[in-house]
Amino acid sequence: MKNIYILGAAGSIGMQTLDIIKAQSDQFKLIGVSLSRDDHKNDLILSTFPVEIACLRNDQKILFYEKKYPKTSFVFGDKGLLDIAKYPKPGILVNALSGSVGLYPTIEAIKQKKDIALANKETLVMAGDIVNQYIKDYQVKLLPIDSEHSAIWQTLDEFHIDDIKKIVITASGGAFRDKTRDDLIEVTVEDALRHPNWSMGPKVTIDSATMMNKGLEIIEAHHLFHLPYDKIETVLHKESLVHGLTYYKDGTIKASLGQNDMHIPIGYALNYPNRMTFQSEFTLKDMHFSPMDFQRFPLLQLAYEVGKAGGLLPVVMNAANEAAVKLFLENKITFLSIEEIVIRTVKQFSNKTNPTLEDILKTDKEVQQTILDFYEKR
Amino acid sequence: MKNIYILGAAGSIGMQTLDIIKAQSDQFKLIGVSLSRDDHKNDLILSTFPVEIACLRNDQKILFYEKKYPKTSFVFGDKGLLDIAKYPKPGILVNALSGSVGLYPTIEAIKQKKDIALANKETLVMAGDIVNQYIKDYQVKLLPIDSEHSAIWQTLDEFHIDDIKKIVITASGGAFRDKTRDDLIEVTVEDALRHPNWSMGPKVTIDSATMMNKGLEIIEAHHLFHLPYDKIETVLHKESLVHGLTYYKDGTIKASLGQNDMHIPIGYALNYPNRMTFQSEFTLKDMHFSPMDFQRFPLLQLAYEVGKAGGLLPVVMNAANEAAVKLFLENKITFLSIEEIVIRTVKQFSNKTNPTLEDILKTDKEVQQTILDFYEKR
Repeated sequence: MKNIYILGAAGSIGMQTLDIIKAQSDQFKLIGVSLSRDDHKNDLILSTFPVEIACLRNDQKILFYEKKYPKTSFVFGDKGLLDIAKYPKPGILVNALSGSVGLYPTIEAIKQKKDIALANKETLVMAGDIVNQYIKDYQVKLLPIDSEHSAIWQTLDEFHIDDIKKIVITASGGAFRDKTRDDLIEVTVEDALRHPNWSMGPKVTIDSATMMNKGLEIIEAHHLFHLPYDKIETVLHKESLVHGLTYYKDGTIKASLGQNDMHIPIGYALNYPNRMTFQSEFTLKDMHFSPMDFQRFPLLQLAYEVGKAGGLLPVVMNAANEAAVKLFLENKITFLSIEEIVIRTVKQFSNKTNPTLEDILKTDKEVQQTILDFYEKR
Repeated sequence: MKNIYILGAAGSIGMQTLDIIKAQSDQFKLIGVSLSRDDHKNDLILSTFPVEIACLRNDQKILFYEKKYPKTSFVFGDKGLLDIAKYPKPGILVNALSGSVGLYPTIEAIKQKKDIALANKETLVMAGDIVNQYIKDYQVKLLPIDSEHSAIWQTLDEFHIDDIKKIVITASGGAFRDKTRDDLIEVTVEDALRHPNWSMGPKVTIDSATMMNKGLEIIEAHHLFHLPYDKIETVLHKESLVHGLTYYKDGTIKASLGQNDMHIPIGYALNYPNRMTFQSEFTLKDMHFSPMDFQRFPLLQLAYEVGKAGGLLPVVMNAANEAAVKLFLENKITFLSIEEIVIRTVKQFSNKTNPTLEDILKTDKEVQQTILDFYEKR
């Protein structure tokens, strides 16, 4: 029986994680969750899983929840996320938070010797070196949940890392893959939220349309698999059936494929090194691949440069993107402004090497706030 | 330093094995080879590799060779193959013989505790159960060389065999994949020898055109990976870039891809568990898959039935095919007669379960001889 904690339980990854815990109730026990602003979803979760600790977004309804679920301890806000991370029972913490808020709870959970099943890309993008040091010091497992990273994990022979020529992660191209840059001038939020292959949260769906998502993924892959950036490539693959490939030095290429269903990588992370039984229809059909177009997707190009530069630049890129996507989702800027804001913010920043965790969190806040202030006050 | 023996050194697989031994001369030492009727090829091999023992096809030129290569012991014929198999230095025996002649040397090599790198499908098709028992008793390794089986080997988690839903081996469709059965009435030997993707020996090229090759491969896979036939599937994939796939019970599918170059699986078998460095260009491009058509390729259907029945039937099917392909290559029968002969011969045979090695070798000879006699005397 493995204890499970989920941060972001009411989100897309969180809910699918709950499906697996329910289906494998003989294997997993849900101990703690962080919830959403949506009372209906929260009720659904709390009535199905009698958790020991639950984190609400704020303290407004805490008495209401405490009365309704007397066996659960309720905490709230960013500090509440840390309370869950620090909760003194061993287990796996599924970090399915969206955005930079995911970083600090990951580190606290590692310090409590919890294994981390990671869907929150920002954890490694912002502080990969620091997180890896904690992982090493506390000897916990870091289990990727992204479909691409799960695919690489399953095709990469970690015991023969010198045999690896490169890894390739696939990109669907997002909602606007068939549009030219000129077409992008007029696109709306609704257009951008229509991902062709995956049903995901709004942030990652927009990030897919700008290819920033793939940019975050290559930085994540760099930290997860300890590979230099020149061994991490991307390819356009509109069907999203092949999720990732590892190229070996002898000419062998291993690929991991599967239906576009996040239950599969989540289940693999939770059950590792075993596999769950999961019904998934998959018919081998024609698959298309074409080279990545860096002119078309400048944020991916930027991510490589920022990743190689290291220091605070990935934090700045991620923070600028997080703020810009928020503004776009609020209809305050155009789609193409996301790229402009991110590129401009990165270019104007004076980098700092070997930042501390405090530097990282401070920079993240400052960059986001500066951008939001500027556009929201216009 | 690993000692290597090659049976069928002058054939397509044999010559490519020699390339690898030459390129990795710090890793491998060629001890013994069986040669061909082609003196030029034999000279090329013997002048490059000072082997300790070499097997000629017959005793006609043995004095000539002994004089020219005084440091090499020469043997000949089927008994010569066994002399190489029994040669008392440990190492890997690469069995790249074509046809049923490959079986007996495999068994003798196992008894000498040599590991077997197997390109000779007939070894397992004819006597998989017996060979597996020897493998177990003598604790040697059986290393597949076929590209499809190498792919499955590299994607199949042998330590979690219960996690495997099925394996799928790909089929290019052979020289006549775009022809209907009606088109096949008039095809010539030259047509049949033009394989679209692979450059191979004549027997396996014809077997690709009839899909008998895939039939032999599913029986081979059954014995190599200890999977029942209902977990072994085939799919048409005209590019031959994906060689094999393993489907796991959680929805994950692992595939092994690579350039159509037999150096890759040969090198993997010889270097296992390490990998050689090998220059191979591979660009991910569009790939096509379509369901296998058993009406179009009745010999594949037959192979499933024969494989499931077991006993002597696989021996009979293989022997009938071997004789029929020989007759076709000699322009004595039409292309479609290959299928007719194989199917008729199998249908007419009274099966025997748990055959001995003697039963197998005797049946093989009798079936082949009966067919050859019938058609050659017409």
